[in-house]
Amino acid sequence: MLLSGAKRSYLVKVSKGKRFSFNEGIIDSEEIIGRQYGEEVTTHLGVHLRLVHPTLLDIVYRGFTRRTQVIYPKDAALIILRCGVGPGSRVVEAGTGSGCLTALLAHFVRPTGTVYTYEVRREFIDIARENLAAVGLLDYVVIKEKDVREGIEEKEVDAVILDMADPWHVIEHAHRALRCGGTLTCFLPTINQVERVVDEAIAKGFIMVETVELLLRNFKVKRGETRPEVRMIGHTGYIVFARKP
Amino acid sequence: MLLSGAKRSYLVKVSKGKRFSFNEGIIDSEEIIGRQYGEEVTTHLGVHLRLVHPTLLDIVYRGFTRRTQVIYPKDAALIILRCGVGPGSRVVEAGTGSGCLTALLAHFVRPTGTVYTYEVRREFIDIARENLAAVGLLDYVVIKEKDVREGIEEKEVDAVILDMADPWHVIEHAHRALRCGGTLTCFLPTINQVERVVDEAIAKGFIMVETVELLLRNFKVKRGETRPEVRMIGHTGYIVFARKP
Amino acid sequence: MLLSGAKRSYLVKVSKGKRFSFNEGIIDSEEIIGRQYGEEVTTHLGVHLRLVHPTLLDIVYRGFTRRTQVIYPKDAALIILRCGVGPGSRVVEAGTGSGCLTALLAHFVRPTGTVYTYEVRREFIDIARENLAAVGLLDYVVIKEKDVREGIEEKEVDAVILDMADPWHVIEHAHRALRCGGTLTCFLPTINQVERVVDEAIAKGFIMVETVELLLRNFKVKRGETRPEVRMIGHTGYIVFARKP
Amino acid sequence: MLLSGAKRSYLVKVSKGKRFSFNEGIIDSEEIIGRQYGEEVTTHLGVHLRLVHPTLLDIVYRGFTRRTQVIYPKDAALIILRCGVGPGSRVVEAGTGSGCLTALLAHFVRPTGTVYTYEVRREFIDIARENLAAVGLLDYVVIKEKDVREGIEEKEVDAVILDMADPWHVIEHAHRALRCGGTLTCFLPTINQVERVVDEAIAKGFIMVETVELLLRNFKVKRGETRPEVRMIGHTGYIVFARKP
Repeated sequence: MLLSGAKRSYLVKVSKGKRFSFNEGIIDSEEIIGRQYGEEVTTHLGVHLRLVHPTLLDIVYRGFTRRTQVIYPKDAALIILRCGVGPGSRVVEAGTGSGCLTALLAHFVRPTGTVYTYEVRREFIDIARENLAAVGLLDYVVIKEKDVREGIEEKEVDAVILDMADPWHVIEHAHRALRCGGTLTCFLPTINQVERVVDEAIAKGFIMVETVELLLRNFKVKRGETRPEVRMIGHTGYIVFARKP
Repeated sequence: MLLSGAKRSYLVKVSKGKRFSFNEGIIDSEEIIGRQYGEEVTTHLGVHLRLVHPTLLDIVYRGFTRRTQVIYPKDAALIILRCGVGPGSRVVEAGTGSGCLTALLAHFVRPTGTVYTYEVRREFIDIARENLAAVGLLDYVVIKEKDVREGIEEKEVDAVILDMADPWHVIEHAHRALRCGGTLTCFLPTINQVERVVDEAIAKGFIMVETVELLLRNFKVKRGETRPEVRMIGHTGYIVFARKP
Repeated sequence: MLLSGAKRSYLVKVSKGKRFSFNEGIIDSEEIIGRQYGEEVTTHLGVHLRLVHPTLLDIVYRGFTRRTQVIYPKDAALIILRCGVGPGSRVVEAGTGSGCLTALLAHFVRPTGTVYTYEVRREFIDIARENLAAVGLLDYVVIKEKDVREGIEEKEVDAVILDMADPWHVIEHAHRALRCGGTLTCFLPTINQVERVVDEAIAKGFIMVETVELLLRNFKVKRGETRPEVRMIGHTGYIVFARKP
Repeated sequence: MLLSGAKRSYLVKVSKGKRFSFNEGIIDSEEIIGRQYGEEVTTHLGVHLRLVHPTLLDIVYRGFTRRTQVIYPKDAALIILRCGVGPGSRVVEAGTGSGCLTALLAHFVRPTGTVYTYEVRREFIDIARENLAAVGLLDYVVIKEKDVREGIEEKEVDAVILDMADPWHVIEHAHRALRCGGTLTCFLPTINQVERVVDEAIAKGFIMVETVELLLRNFKVKRGETRPEVRMIGHTGYIVFARKP
């Protein structure tokens, strides 16, 4: 990641012969390769850019190829914490989409856990595989080109996470796949989907069914001028959590 | 964890001779010891309770001894995701408090990472150590009875997380302790603390300084009666994120 | 209204022989009668209380006898502004309930407008009538002991405001009663009621149908300790606005 | 106001020779003059547009010439309800700006009340006067080309409403101008202004000082696809209310 001043940054993937063009000027990969994080490089306009180690979040949200709507960090964070995963966990996820949540899950189940991710659309699988490979997380992921509505093949998994339009078709499969005490999580844009999933989850014997929504406010902070940002994302989705008894 | 019906649950720590008393009746540890998760036990009133494997979150938020205000899961989740930790990370945290955030961080840096947590109040250190030991995470934590305002001894850490009243005294130490690209996170109840920390972080050379606030709404979901809960937590704290260039 | 210090206040209705007992001590109506607003009176404990002219809002929200859930000021305010009433307006409201919204509407349609309020439950009508009389607004209100679901008798009204459980039965009546360009407003606790009302309003030819929800945050403001209040009301209801073309 | 279908509407002011051009085609004022509200007119493309009586809110928020940031309806509504005005009230407002809040206040104090509005910038006064005249509310407004920080000339007013950058200079004047029990209201974009105003209001003897913030969420309502709108206004301003004892 290249930084210009305090606010502007660029995420680049260097490779021989590749050249990058920013507002600050042009720079060749050759100028970057071999440098240490923390060092500065200079564009053809003489502007200095600093090389900074990107976090996984930088890469997933700024570097991943996307073809789908992507889950927001605020929602991904709560899902990851509340679904109970950690190093060694076995998690089932559907659908894969661009692989953003897959990558975050894979990151946290390392080094001994696995994310089993179901996706029916071949083009997304290819993008997700490429994205996951780029961050070195493919080893912790099993991508399955299958319709999760037809069944989950894994058993005794710690968590099932559904980010799909009709998760009610998967509730029963999730119940069978989860270990006792395991967590079902559904991310849903509309309240109607929430009603249907909650109904189905209770009907299939899930307990501790909870529905939440997260709102994130960004602030403009400056002595004497501090206030929330005028524009904000008013809605991303609802999250339903449930436990298998 | 013992479940009664779909909503009520109890977190217990069994030990010989210990007896638990619930609304559903009394039960002895002896009745629970040796049972498998998923099995049922019966109280003296004949009520069946199911044994469920608790998640780390269940234990941290319901089983930990607390002497301090504790960070909410919504905030802990975003901090953990955005501060960039994961298996193998080295994180500095202050203050330890009851050890809730410490436990969550330790959980995610396993098996090769370490959480260095600073606390000046001896009584909290004892409580935190006991809490961390109870969940088997003490091996991934170094508890330091030191005032973090006097310096951070670790170098090249991935993240510094400050949940304390006057973090502005620690910004310079955090800058020295962090690796290039590492993340500083401060959790702060008042907007005045935010202003002071943001000022200091910018003054000390931190970049990408962002302030956010999370609001969590719980929903009552029932066909035909779905609405947000009437009472909600209106404020926990602001979170400031910054990066070392 | 009697004030004690900067925060505590009491709303009283004086009458000969009536005696009031507060934390600050006891005081007789006789001591208050004849005093001017702004003057102070003294309790038997020697505490001074200041006489302050109450606003309509003070009386409606603190002095009215209530038997029902009452609409919050934030919602009442937006309804009053957006439904387009003002001095001279003719408004239909249902149900009357304790008469809180009725009083606010009556206040704003004075001196030449009228609020026609429908209520089927006799006991509420009596309470509302008493409440409205106490604030001198009964002259601007026609209380009708009728089921609004069976029809609205008024014609060419400026606004119809429905705060009832099943307003979809009244949409067609509202359409007939409203003048061209007039406003229909429904206040609804659940999202399911919203869906049904919006469907029905569009089906019956209403236009510019909008649904909103207001969240009010209270702040604790003190130099250096400013933050939103920890507890807040997370939900009161949704408001649907629509116009007759 | 001209309506096209259920959602699109145009606010026009007809005058001889004036011609309007919409997506739906061109139409001359002559075609509109003499028609009744509720009737339809036809553009040169043959599209029918319906004539609808606009509410004051339609005109203020869509028809007024604006040179300034304008207070949102959600905030104006709460201010109007909580400041205690109504038919006959005498209100002081500063600054006038484009006259939006002035118009709404004038609307509600009719027919016997008056809004005294202070503004130092001559160009705004001209715009406000024109706007107020266009809606027939100028008779209820006294526009004063004076700096309110130098004093309020009115006495015993019911409410003082300050929508200006530095209201702390006016608190003492407001205290003198208000009747006992009268209401001071300040609308402020930043939390720092709030701190300063609250400090000053308490120092000058105001009581019942409260600070609130309103968030308005718009909803997309459609059977099976109901959810809050993705984009929302995250912040307009804080409102401080206080009472003169």
